[in-house]
Amino acid sequence: MPLARVHNLSISLDGFATGEPQSAEAPFGHAGERLHEWMFATRFWDSSGSAGLDDALAQRHGQGIGAEIMGANKFGPPGWQDDPDWTGWWGSNPPFRSPTFVLTHRPRPPVEMEGGTTFHFLDVPPAEALETAFEAAEGQDVRIGGGATVVRDFVAAGLVDLMHLVQVPIVLGRGVRIWDGLEATEDDYDIEAVSSPSGVTHLTFTRKPEGSVHG
Amino acid sequence: MPLARVHNLSISLDGFATGEPQSAEAPFGHAGERLHEWMFATRFWDSSGSAGLDDALAQRHGQGIGAEIMGANKFGPPGWQDDPDWTGWWGSNPPFRSPTFVLTHRPRPPVEMEGGTTFHFLDVPPAEALETAFEAAEGQDVRIGGGATVVRDFVAAGLVDLMHLVQVPIVLGRGVRIWDGLEATEDDYDIEAVSSPSGVTHLTFTRKPEGSVHG
Repeated sequence: MPLARVHNLSISLDGFATGEPQSAEAPFGHAGERLHEWMFATRFWDSSGSAGLDDALAQRHGQGIGAEIMGANKFGPPGWQDDPDWTGWWGSNPPFRSPTFVLTHRPRPPVEMEGGTTFHFLDVPPAEALETAFEAAEGQDVRIGGGATVVRDFVAAGLVDLMHLVQVPIVLGRGVRIWDGLEATEDDYDIEAVSSPSGVTHLTFTRKPEGSVHG
Repeated sequence: MPLARVHNLSISLDGFATGEPQSAEAPFGHAGERLHEWMFATRFWDSSGSAGLDDALAQRHGQGIGAEIMGANKFGPPGWQDDPDWTGWWGSNPPFRSPTFVLTHRPRPPVEMEGGTTFHFLDVPPAEALETAFEAAEGQDVRIGGGATVVRDFVAAGLVDLMHLVQVPIVLGRGVRIWDGLEATEDDYDIEAVSSPSGVTHLTFTRKPEGSVHG
């Protein structure tokens, strides 16, 4: 069965996946790009990067994915819904290369971009969005692309099969915290932690078979 | 120069060092002993335990320590100050084997226990408590023994030289969080993360030389 997967979601030691305030100039607020430096150093991001543990795990982001679901806060800065020409942060050729479902309370018609990405806009609960995305993925997996609030909502709803978090050794103190509302998540997942020579720790949550929601 | 050190402070993925509510029956609240199972499996705790990475790091708890500082919440359950006969959780022969300073707003006379532990009770700010403990330690290091609130206060005051946290792969959701108020701690410490085959991740915070408060 196809899976719902989260990849490369970087968090601080205190669990924040973004800082604050978020704006067009600072999409991650006071966190800047500190949560993502580990990824920039990999071949996944840059062909001159490293090809070790961080890269192997980062590369899974695109493997076997047929559609993505993302939240409104990932698609644009606060207020993007008021700009009819806003088509995301990623230019004319976004890196998703698949149907990409943006959750927003103010949906608009789909936008077809270059390179295989089409943005669809949905105002539906997580389970319904996932059903729609699975159909669009045609048998492949669906990536829950973030931000943290969306990932949290999908995990809390029991909809995520695999979640890869990357813990970066900084303490952000404020922002959007991945853990809120996820008490006892270990009951549903096998959790593996592996520290990388780069300094980050990869946390992989694999849904336990008996708890599978798609099985 | 002698150091102020924190050892074996176990936290959940979401940073809680204890659950809630804390009581005489459940000193760690709903966390139970889940934060400490890694330690019970080591030779540090039980002579039939493991002697690997977890043990090597756990053993540092007692090495070179001449005094401990602990908070009121570590010394006893809520309300212990009303019991004149309360002498801690640890029986007649506590494991500290050194002068041990309990921070409380209701100090009482010192209590000499078996095995080298004497409990002293102080109602002073962190820096003053540490100065007193360093004197008592006679050139050895001082352990900041917890709980989480006390560790947090000492770190926030810039008084801790080395901090060893142990991250356990559970999400507690509530309790006392180690990270609150410690934004940008990475500016003052080199942080090393190493995952153990047991499933926990050891986080070692070593104060950067330029920021040393005792140097």
